[in-house]
Parts: sequence; structure tokens; C-alpha cells
Amino acid sequence: MSATDTARIIDGLELAKAVRDELVERIRGIHQEGSKVRLDAVIVDGNAAGSVYAASQARSCEQLGIEYELHELPADVEQSVVHETISRLNADPGVHAIMVHLPLPPGIDAEAVQSGIIPSKDVEGVNPANIGNVIYGRRSLVPCTALATIQMIEATGCILQGKRVVCVGASRIVGRPVAVLLMQAEATVISTNIHTVDLASLTRDADVVVTAAGVPGLLTGDMVKQGAIVIDVGINRVLDPETGKTQTRGDVDFDSVSQVAGWLSPVPGGVGPMTVAMLLRNTVDSAQQSQLS
Amino acid sequence: MSATDTARIIDGLELAKAVRDELVERIRGIHQEGSKVRLDAVIVDGNAAGSVYAASQARSCEQLGIEYELHELPADVEQSVVHETISRLNADPGVHAIMVHLPLPPGIDAEAVQSGIIPSKDVEGVNPANIGNVIYGRRSLVPCTALATIQMIEATGCILQGKRVVCVGASRIVGRPVAVLLMQAEATVISTNIHTVDLASLTRDADVVVTAAGVPGLLTGDMVKQGAIVIDVGINRVLDPETGKTQTRGDVDFDSVSQVAGWLSPVPGGVGPMTVAMLLRNTVDSAQQSQLS
Repeated sequence: MSATDTARIIDGLELAKAVRDELVERIRGIHQEGSKVRLDAVIVDGNAAGSVYAASQARSCEQLGIEYELHELPADVEQSVVHETISRLNADPGVHAIMVHLPLPPGIDAEAVQSGIIPSKDVEGVNPANIGNVIYGRRSLVPCTALATIQMIEATGCILQGKRVVCVGASRIVGRPVAVLLMQAEATVISTNIHTVDLASLTRDADVVVTAAGVPGLLTGDMVKQGAIVIDVGINRVLDPETGKTQTRGDVDFDSVSQVAGWLSPVPGGVGPMTVAMLLRNTVDSAQQSQLS
Repeated sequence: MSATDTARIIDGLELAKAVRDELVERIRGIHQEGSKVRLDAVIVDGNAAGSVYAASQARSCEQLGIEYELHELPADVEQSVVHETISRLNADPGVHAIMVHLPLPPGIDAEAVQSGIIPSKDVEGVNPANIGNVIYGRRSLVPCTALATIQMIEATGCILQGKRVVCVGASRIVGRPVAVLLMQAEATVISTNIHTVDLASLTRDADVVVTAAGVPGLLTGDMVKQGAIVIDVGINRVLDPETGKTQTRGDVDFDSVSQVAGWLSPVPGGVGPMTVAMLLRNTVDSAQQSQLS
């Protein structure tokens, strides 16, 4: 294998930009029909991290022509008030899409809040009915990270039907939803976890490997089949001993895997930006669906 | 291997009886606390098959001390009336458990009806929120056939964590929910379908094989590892050319697999009776949960 024979990079920033360009067109069409697209976000105790993300989201929406409304609730808000806020947004026909910024304060039951978002406006796919609908093969809004992962695979031209795909990690938020989406795409799906015996023997036979384990550098080149597609969903904060600064690293050992894989989605710059784009696409899908019904 | 060295049978009838015996005790305890257990079933257009099943269900409930109420709606009922019936049962604190007999007439949207059952009373686990809750690792009522499959595996003493399990078939009703429950049990889960390349190489390495493909005799002895656990969830009606009668056969070639497997759940007499028992257990769970909340 020559030194130039390295994996092609699946560029999440570029793909996300293409999604946003497509959304701009779709939103223009919706506006021309006299309709709107609107995303409502709820934030409790707007701490620094949460409000920075909310501000960035507001800018993204503005750029695309999506109306964005942020509902700020105080840190000591009661659970019932959060539910009332969600219920009001559920019932408002002018609201197409609802999301709740995490984390919520310790006193608030986040699961109950997420389950309270009506499935048809749940653009983060956090209501369990939405991933359940995928299992039952029904039209649904899908959790954004899982959806982004599938998009990254398909961006290579890969047709998932019949492909052997290993998901490294079976977390509730990423690993399991990804596995369900892959089943829906008719792949042969292998879901592994920390108890899996001989992981390498499974990944070595895989056409596609998705890593969502939260272990920096877990997947090394000797564990990957020549030409395979590798999607890194891990986001790990790692301290660089030389500089003393934290870096973001994935679950993939980039240097060795890039020598073997055919395609590689990096961290940062891979699934992350695509996940943000999927939230926006779900928002537009949701708005269009509401105009059909 | 000696001729006597054949698989032990996982007897679904016997296991289901043990579940019912345990339920009788639990229900007695609930009665002693002055409470009840009640299952409400909705049937539209009580055709022969449906009413036979409903009558058998009524008897099972009576034997266990579960109050059973059947709500019969005419064949030409409107969708809205079915929804009103479900909503009334959802709201009634005396109703612990709701199920809807299938099939519904062509004019009725079965998915919408099932999604309308409140998750906490959905003892068949047909509301997508319930299987979604399993993905998110939350307490949930689980689809009965999938639950029965897990029970059959665990009845052998198998601890699923870290075991390699192949699900043959990724249907919406059985294969996918089983895969999700196996992920929750921390098994290494391999979900296959009709497009899977070299199925035998996967099943031969599996500690447990679950067949839910709907193909009579699909799994043969040469595809199974010595001592593996095999759970047959297939229910196929096959015409016997000699007698001209239809027989019920599973997806497993019993004669060859029983020579290799360590444990085998047969058809009939395996997962089927256990599925019925799981509905009753879900009903009692639901009643107990309602008394806690």
C-alpha cells in the first residue's frame, strides 16, 4: 500500500453546508406559499454553555429563514410550569418544532419533559415514540445524531441494504438509535458493547464501522477491513500532556485507521456539524408536514 | 456425539404455567390490599377468529382473578368512535390494562389506534413510546412476543450480558423489538435479514440464535454451534402433502438442530404460550404500578 493510499475524509462541515443550502431552497418555497417555518426552544436556567448554544442556534435559524423563539425559564421553575410551556407549544398551530436545551436543573425530570413534546414537533427525536416509530417502520422524526451518522455513511455512495455494519457502543442516546436506523435500512447490524467478546473479529469483517463508545482511540487500523467506511461518533475531551490544553478526540485512532479505511468521518468536523444540520432539516420537515395535515 | 445427546427442550407450556402460578399469588396479594386487576379489550367486528381468542382470554383472566371486560364495536364503526373508546379507558382509573384485538376492519387505522393507548396501560406494548422507552433504558411495558423470547433464553440459566446473539429476521413486530431488548440486556446483538450475506457464518459463532424469519426450516443443524440456545419464534402454516392438513411449523429444522443445540424452544409449545402469559404479567405489572403512583 502506497503512502498516498489513505482514506477519503467524509467532511461533515461540507456536507452540513450542502444540507443548509438545500434547506434554504425549501424554506424559500414554503415562504412563497405564504407559510413559515418556526422552531421554539425552551431553556431553563440559561447558564453560559446553554445560552451560547442557543445564541448560535438563533443565528443558524436566522440565516436560513427559520423563525426562532427562545423560551427562558428561571432556574427555580417548577416541573409543572415546564410541562405547561411544552403543552402550550404543542397546541399552538404556529409552532412547528420544539426542542429543550439540556441540561435541565436537578429538580426537573428531563425524561418526563422530553416525553411531553408531541412527536410531530419533536425535532430532536427525544420523545420515545419517535424512535419507537422507526422500529415499527413508520414515518417519524429521528434523533439527530443517529440521523447524521446514517447521512455520513450514505454520503460515500454506500447502499446500506445487505451491508455488514458494526456499531461499537450501545448507548441509549447514540448506539441504540443508530442500530435501529440501520435495521430500518436493511443492513446486517452488529451492536457491541463493553462486554463484547473479541470485538476486533467483528469489526474486521464489517463493511461499515460506527464508533460511539466514548473511548479515545479505541478503534485502531488492525481492527478495520481494507476499504471499509468508518464513522466516528465519539466526542472525548482529552488533555494534551505537552500543551496542558484539552483537545477533542474521537473513538478512532485516526493515524492507523486512515491507512486502512476507504472512508473516514473525522472528529472534529464529522458527525458533529451534520447533527446540527439534521435538527434544522427536521424542523423544515416538521413545518412542511404540518402544512400537509 | 451419542444419539442421546440431543438438545434440552425449553417447554413454553410449562414455563407459562409457572408464570401464571406466580401471577395468582401476586393477584391474591393485590386483592388482600383491597385492590383489583382489570384488563379491558376492544374488538371491532367480532369475527370468528377474534372472538374465539377473546373468549379464551376471558377464561384465562377469570382463572387468575383478573377482571376482564370486552368492548365490542360494530364492523362499520367510525375511527373517531374507536379513539373515543380508547380515550375513555385511558382516563378511567379503574382500568389498568388495555388491548385491541387485531385485525381491525380495513377502514380503521390500526397504528393510530395503537398509538392512542396510554403507554402505562398498553400491555401489548404496541404504542411506539413503549419500545422507544426500552431503547432509552426506561421502565416500560414491552411487546409480549419479544418479552417471551427473552424469558425463554433466560429460563435456561443463560446470562445475556456479553453473549453473542443472532436474530434471524428484522421484522417490525418481532425481530427489531427482540434486538432492542437484547441490547438492553447488554448482549452482543447481530440483527440479520433476507439481504444478509453468509448468514451461516454468523449463526455458527452465536451463543444464542433467535429465528423470526417466517421461513419454515430455515435454520438447520449445520448453522448452529454445539451447545447453543435456539429460540424459534417462527409460526408458519405448512400443508402436509400426505395428509392434506395444515401444520404449524417454526423456522427451525427441529431434527437437525436438536442434534447440535444445547437448548431448543420448539414450535408449537414454545414462545407462543409464553407470549400469552406475558400479556397477563404485563396486566398485573400495570395494575401494581397504578397502585404505586
